[in-house]
Amino acid sequence: MTTTRTEADLLGELAVPADAYYGVQTRRAMANFPISGLPLSTHPELVVALARVKHAAALANHDVGLLSGDKTAAIVAACEEIESGRLHEQFTVDVIQGGAGTSSNMNVNEVVTNRALELLGRPRGDYARLHPIDDVNLGQSTNDVYPTAVKLAVHAAATELLDAMAELRGALAAKGREFTDVVKIGRTQLQDAVPMTLGREFTAFAVTLGEDEQRLAEALTLLTEINLGGTAIGTGLNAHPDYARLACEHLARLTGTPLVTATDLVEATADVGVFVQLSGVLKRVAVKLSKTCNDLRLLSSGPQAGFNELRLPKVQAGSSIMPGKVNPVIPEVVNQIAFEVIGNDTTVTLAAEAGQLQLNAFEPIIAHSLLKSLHHLRTGAQTLARRCITGITANTEHLRRQVRESIGLVTALNPVIGYEAASALAKQASATGRSIHELVVDAGLLTSEQLDTLLGLPATTPG
Amino acid sequence: MTTTRTEADLLGELAVPADAYYGVQTRRAMANFPISGLPLSTHPELVVALARVKHAAALANHDVGLLSGDKTAAIVAACEEIESGRLHEQFTVDVIQGGAGTSSNMNVNEVVTNRALELLGRPRGDYARLHPIDDVNLGQSTNDVYPTAVKLAVHAAATELLDAMAELRGALAAKGREFTDVVKIGRTQLQDAVPMTLGREFTAFAVTLGEDEQRLAEALTLLTEINLGGTAIGTGLNAHPDYARLACEHLARLTGTPLVTATDLVEATADVGVFVQLSGVLKRVAVKLSKTCNDLRLLSSGPQAGFNELRLPKVQAGSSIMPGKVNPVIPEVVNQIAFEVIGNDTTVTLAAEAGQLQLNAFEPIIAHSLLKSLHHLRTGAQTLARRCITGITANTEHLRRQVRESIGLVTALNPVIGYEAASALAKQASATGRSIHELVVDAGLLTSEQLDTLLGLPATTPG
Amino acid sequence: MTTTRTEADLLGELAVPADAYYGVQTRRAMANFPISGLPLSTHPELVVALARVKHAAALANHDVGLLSGDKTAAIVAACEEIESGRLHEQFTVDVIQGGAGTSSNMNVNEVVTNRALELLGRPRGDYARLHPIDDVNLGQSTNDVYPTAVKLAVHAAATELLDAMAELRGALAAKGREFTDVVKIGRTQLQDAVPMTLGREFTAFAVTLGEDEQRLAEALTLLTEINLGGTAIGTGLNAHPDYARLACEHLARLTGTPLVTATDLVEATADVGVFVQLSGVLKRVAVKLSKTCNDLRLLSSGPQAGFNELRLPKVQAGSSIMPGKVNPVIPEVVNQIAFEVIGNDTTVTLAAEAGQLQLNAFEPIIAHSLLKSLHHLRTGAQTLARRCITGITANTEHLRRQVRESIGLVTALNPVIGYEAASALAKQASATGRSIHELVVDAGLLTSEQLDTLLGLPATTPG
Amino acid sequence: MTTTRTEADLLGELAVPADAYYGVQTRRAMANFPISGLPLSTHPELVVALARVKHAAALANHDVGLLSGDKTAAIVAACEEIESGRLHEQFTVDVIQGGAGTSSNMNVNEVVTNRALELLGRPRGDYARLHPIDDVNLGQSTNDVYPTAVKLAVHAAATELLDAMAELRGALAAKGREFTDVVKIGRTQLQDAVPMTLGREFTAFAVTLGEDEQRLAEALTLLTEINLGGTAIGTGLNAHPDYARLACEHLARLTGTPLVTATDLVEATADVGVFVQLSGVLKRVAVKLSKTCNDLRLLSSGPQAGFNELRLPKVQAGSSIMPGKVNPVIPEVVNQIAFEVIGNDTTVTLAAEAGQLQLNAFEPIIAHSLLKSLHHLRTGAQTLARRCITGITANTEHLRRQVRESIGLVTALNPVIGYEAASALAKQASATGRSIHELVVDAGLLTSEQLDTLLGLPATTPG
Repeated sequence: MTTTRTEADLLGELAVPADAYYGVQTRRAMANFPISGLPLSTHPELVVALARVKHAAALANHDVGLLSGDKTAAIVAACEEIESGRLHEQFTVDVIQGGAGTSSNMNVNEVVTNRALELLGRPRGDYARLHPIDDVNLGQSTNDVYPTAVKLAVHAAATELLDAMAELRGALAAKGREFTDVVKIGRTQLQDAVPMTLGREFTAFAVTLGEDEQRLAEALTLLTEINLGGTAIGTGLNAHPDYARLACEHLARLTGTPLVTATDLVEATADVGVFVQLSGVLKRVAVKLSKTCNDLRLLSSGPQAGFNELRLPKVQAGSSIMPGKVNPVIPEVVNQIAFEVIGNDTTVTLAAEAGQLQLNAFEPIIAHSLLKSLHHLRTGAQTLARRCITGITANTEHLRRQVRESIGLVTALNPVIGYEAASALAKQASATGRSIHELVVDAGLLTSEQLDTLLGLPATTPG
Repeated sequence: MTTTRTEADLLGELAVPADAYYGVQTRRAMANFPISGLPLSTHPELVVALARVKHAAALANHDVGLLSGDKTAAIVAACEEIESGRLHEQFTVDVIQGGAGTSSNMNVNEVVTNRALELLGRPRGDYARLHPIDDVNLGQSTNDVYPTAVKLAVHAAATELLDAMAELRGALAAKGREFTDVVKIGRTQLQDAVPMTLGREFTAFAVTLGEDEQRLAEALTLLTEINLGGTAIGTGLNAHPDYARLACEHLARLTGTPLVTATDLVEATADVGVFVQLSGVLKRVAVKLSKTCNDLRLLSSGPQAGFNELRLPKVQAGSSIMPGKVNPVIPEVVNQIAFEVIGNDTTVTLAAEAGQLQLNAFEPIIAHSLLKSLHHLRTGAQTLARRCITGITANTEHLRRQVRESIGLVTALNPVIGYEAASALAKQASATGRSIHELVVDAGLLTSEQLDTLLGLPATTPG
Repeated sequence: MTTTRTEADLLGELAVPADAYYGVQTRRAMANFPISGLPLSTHPELVVALARVKHAAALANHDVGLLSGDKTAAIVAACEEIESGRLHEQFTVDVIQGGAGTSSNMNVNEVVTNRALELLGRPRGDYARLHPIDDVNLGQSTNDVYPTAVKLAVHAAATELLDAMAELRGALAAKGREFTDVVKIGRTQLQDAVPMTLGREFTAFAVTLGEDEQRLAEALTLLTEINLGGTAIGTGLNAHPDYARLACEHLARLTGTPLVTATDLVEATADVGVFVQLSGVLKRVAVKLSKTCNDLRLLSSGPQAGFNELRLPKVQAGSSIMPGKVNPVIPEVVNQIAFEVIGNDTTVTLAAEAGQLQLNAFEPIIAHSLLKSLHHLRTGAQTLARRCITGITANTEHLRRQVRESIGLVTALNPVIGYEAASALAKQASATGRSIHELVVDAGLLTSEQLDTLLGLPATTPG
Repeated sequence: MTTTRTEADLLGELAVPADAYYGVQTRRAMANFPISGLPLSTHPELVVALARVKHAAALANHDVGLLSGDKTAAIVAACEEIESGRLHEQFTVDVIQGGAGTSSNMNVNEVVTNRALELLGRPRGDYARLHPIDDVNLGQSTNDVYPTAVKLAVHAAATELLDAMAELRGALAAKGREFTDVVKIGRTQLQDAVPMTLGREFTAFAVTLGEDEQRLAEALTLLTEINLGGTAIGTGLNAHPDYARLACEHLARLTGTPLVTATDLVEATADVGVFVQLSGVLKRVAVKLSKTCNDLRLLSSGPQAGFNELRLPKVQAGSSIMPGKVNPVIPEVVNQIAFEVIGNDTTVTLAAEAGQLQLNAFEPIIAHSLLKSLHHLRTGAQTLARRCITGITANTEHLRRQVRESIGLVTALNPVIGYEAASALAKQASATGRSIHELVVDAGLLTSEQLDTLLGLPATTPG
């Protein structure tokens, strides 16, 4: 009862688990890259994208008469299983791998081949019947398959992130509407400035996120340019003249994405600019989310010895020693995601810069970094929306009181009494502890109502 | 014969050089920020942009009846001088400054005021006649003036960078055409791959740069949204209702740029996303330029013990010890610019993330970093085009010989004899030292002409 | 047959799986942080370290009479199980979590408590008998437990990395000795320079790695200063006066590490400088490893159209399209690890900078980033040593030939004929294609043997 | 009346300004690198260090009999002038330059030569009498001269930074003593935690800075290992056997620094690890300074709607629109320096990673980045000490009141009533708005004095 089968490659024979769909090249790669312990299946979008590329390639090769009908059918059936989420546990090479993605490409070549052989009623490893390279990789090279699959995977993950961002934006905008009438002191450089409403503050959070969504959507469109058909270095060596066009059409249909083939395939094979661009946009998203979370943490600081403007929902006990303490743990986790995403951008940048001549050999770490960033930003945005923003309440009375006591009100007097006289008034308020409101009204400069009008504040209601 | 005059502000009196156009607040800022030794005039684009904002603001305030005709005329005349390059030595505050740009704004307020006073026949410091804040800064705050000026400055510098990139792209494309018929071995992962032409390699450099230009142009359009009119925190406090619209129109005309006022001025006052976006694009440009320069250095390595494909023009002796050695100093300096730009992006990212509540207090370092990146990328691209690319020659015969000797030719046989038989042939070539060309022709698999056709190589001319 | 039990905390009641050792607070944290999908058990060093802190704390509390003998015994027994690798699957909170590590601390508090209750013959959740906070967390706060545990975990992982680096250094040094007599042309700026030996080149790789080991060992000693006993903010509130000293002694014994308690516990509670320092050192290791791998890839480039100095061992087929191609996949994976580590350093830097007032709330992402870097550098160094360095061979004859043909030899003539005459000779060699060796001997300047002596080359052996 | 003289090098003749001390190679480099506009003299430490290396080399060459007495004397005299600060305006090559520092080395070779010729009564350019390479660069290469000079320059700048850090630490420690009795609420995660004193907070700032000083001092010692004598690639080609030792001794004496020659000069020539290490330490300093400044800005936020714990000295008017507003501009400028330093570290990292084979060609940008970081951290630390820390005052009464009202006091009750009962008390306080102090005393749990004792607070003095 043997539990292995023997396969051979350029380097000779090797035992492979008998029931594995992957083969000798995957097995070698598993031995060569015991790096992170995270298998390729960590990124299901990438596994699915690789299968879709194989799927489209088989159809295109069949179209041009290079792949028989039965081989095509078997390959397509195997790919469809992977696309539907099955067999992912067979994608065992480490996410951090040398070889420019060759091991990932061979992993999918072998799994598709052996599953297709099974569907054809043949034993695994019967590569004379169906060959991982001559058939499944026909007219292809890692150097066009892998970048194409990474783009598709990243595109899919980014689309999901856009959904999560829209959800978060919606939650922020709803709070913006809810807090329309809540006046407060705005702050610049952490110093009290002039009055505004809490509604405008939350609306601004929503608007800023909406701009990020637009930038991300723009970056997405750049991902639809693929280099499939360029083969090894973009010259299309070994591929049928009609292959690139047909494969792109099939892939566009399979993914529901308007894909186009790059005009200059030599350039497109080596270029990873689109990933640098996307990573820069994700960094921007991270920066803005982090700033928003910093603000939420500041505004909810206290409760006594802080700003105490907002109350975040209590989602867990905050301390193992301080009873009753509740911390802003949801914004905090989003801050940390942001720091990770910014770090991932450094990684992507370095890997992109290290490309040489006709290829960038470091796309696996680019793919891993981007997919992590996309995934964590998505879960982070959802978590922030659902477990924090929607439950936020405002300390309305405290805020109103601060407006009335603020020295910042003096700014409104500039057009009336000039900057220097206003400065003197501010100095007086600071020295005496009396409020600007009081001083202005006492000095007969303005009535209380005139002052409110100047500030654009809702009239105070008695009581 | 006094050499100082006395001015006063919130903190009291202070002596200012009698002939200085700047005033008390600039003087304090000079004392407060003895940081880098680089004055604001290091960035003439920023000085000009600040003057243009003051210019437009004066016109708008005059339009709405808040600024008299003679004051307006004097302010405009002073601004025009600065816009034309004069008085820049009066912009003395350090490029690295606290205070969210207030010191830069006060520097321009004071220089404009004192020069305008001079034009009005009044002594410097006669602020009762024309006031740096009540008149020149009328309806404005640092928080809308400074971000607007930084956007204009960055826009101008980026436009110049685009010109330099186009020049470099032209030089690369010309070489692409010149080298159309130069065959060579393409390389992936630094290992010999399959044949291509040197023309396609240089064309790809040009294409990739062209894509960067598109990304940069897109980022430029984002810079045209300004927050002038928002004043302190975006609520427009102290500005006339028509001011924002009019100031934007004047500024658009003065700069020849289609500026628009942001819809949500509270968001726009605090937001620095556009700078993060631009910095990300500049990082992309840096990454791609660096990769191109790495390739140039690799391809010109040698002359004996290297790739020896290209000869870069000799622009200086390479060594103080090795006679005759010539180094790729121009690509090397561009690599270093790239490293600096990527570092500047880190700085911009951190500064952006540190924004709090209604303002980002760290725009001065963002502006300084971006303007450095834009400037150095521009001088670098020009230098690369003029002192390197245009003079590159190819070692054509050496390249042709390498193609003929390359094991990579075996790839072309995949469709004829299959991957495994081709692998065996490659192994044989590697073991015996005989060329694939020879082995194939000797074994009668293909004629020499058939092989050349498969590879898409120009027919060899008898030699 | 119920499958859940009910627990309660500050926020109310919650169902927990009946057989879970973790409790209500862990359960809430699992719901709050659905971020990366990686549970705390991803980092076994951290789980073990947390258990050791609880273990030491229990012994110290028993010493001072605050914890009964039977409670202490049960807690210690439960901790020992975790320390030996059991129950790790109960550490389910996400590695990316808000709350400054509170959820990790509560996870270990609850697992230890419930396992200890089981050992005491009590049902899980019977916290009246043994309490996760009042007993297991006695005299502790997340803010001293978690940083202490992270330091221990990082210390353990770094110690393992040092072993792997020593192994790699040994492999490089062995090659240095093996290649002692292999002469070659050294290169500066990718241009041929002057002769050296391949032995010195590999020895230099080993030496540089050895220096990194020293820096890492220095950073390790900084990790031995802990803040256990500081409790919430370093004032030691709620801890027995002798607790800090006793807990540190117990922990030092348990870990076999010479731990000391920080002198200023307020500073030590908020400070993460040691992690920034360590991360900087790991970045240095990454930079140097990456440079070494870049060199290996350059030196093995070819085989025909490259440097072709070294042959790396073939560990897998290099291409799915180019038969016979073998790529430097092991150096490539190490390059990618380096890029990741440098990115992680950015993350650590941002997280460290974001600390506020008496605590850094972002230690979880610091811990995750450092443990990833340490782990991947370790597997990378081992892989590089075992699957690449030890199998490297040199193309000795090719190298010797290049020395003889090199224009760089002219440098040796500087002291004999001066820099300018030597420059002229180099120019002549470059123009005519004749070798310096030939020109020098023909011109009667030196004999062949004199030239070899000048260069410090081994005498050439006849053919 | 000619204003130029003609010089020649490998590339032919070139006109040089007649009165320039620099020569043809410097002139070419000025034309080749029109990058930043910042000349080498921007970094006087580097100019001085280059002169010192030339000085020491001349003495060593004289010792071994290779340089005549009169040449030596003239070279030494010229170097001493540069070391004393003269002739720096002759160091005109751009700080960002290709060529691994060759242009900087040739700049100093030429300036020293021409000034020495002048001292010898000879015209500039009379290189037959004294030669920039054969004499001034005798036994040297850029590849040992430049790295040695950079280390010396960085060492000098870092020593000055240490002084500034010590000054800042002293100012912080003094405030720590001044505020010994000022009680306040400590905060974790921006939420009120437990009481502490403001004195401990400032003392912790001082302690953390002191640790940074120790790390920096350690990094400094690594800078004392130099590679002078290795010449082109570390094999010492062209240098007299005793030269390295003698030159190191002279240089140590001239600089007052205990320099040693590296054991493995091949390794030392290519290695820039020490710069990566130093940059990592500077990043750490930046992170900690930034955190300190963030805290100062938080603690001084307000005055009404903020923490309002501290009053920073007023050093300039804060706003051009808000009269009386004063901003924390000094901490803000230090934050920005920190962001720049962290960005510079990215630059250094990239440049270090890009080193290839026997040299790192990118040391000029490493040197420029480090010298900028060192300079700005120094001016920043001094400014922070002198214009901010020394003038800080505390709002003592406000702080004391907050302690008394804080829910955080409940933590002190854990040992008395247990975590769960304490939690209930906290909940009650939060719901009713009554203080813990009140509730505890009212419930008869403790007397007011007992509570103060538990908290370690100074007894309240009657009003």
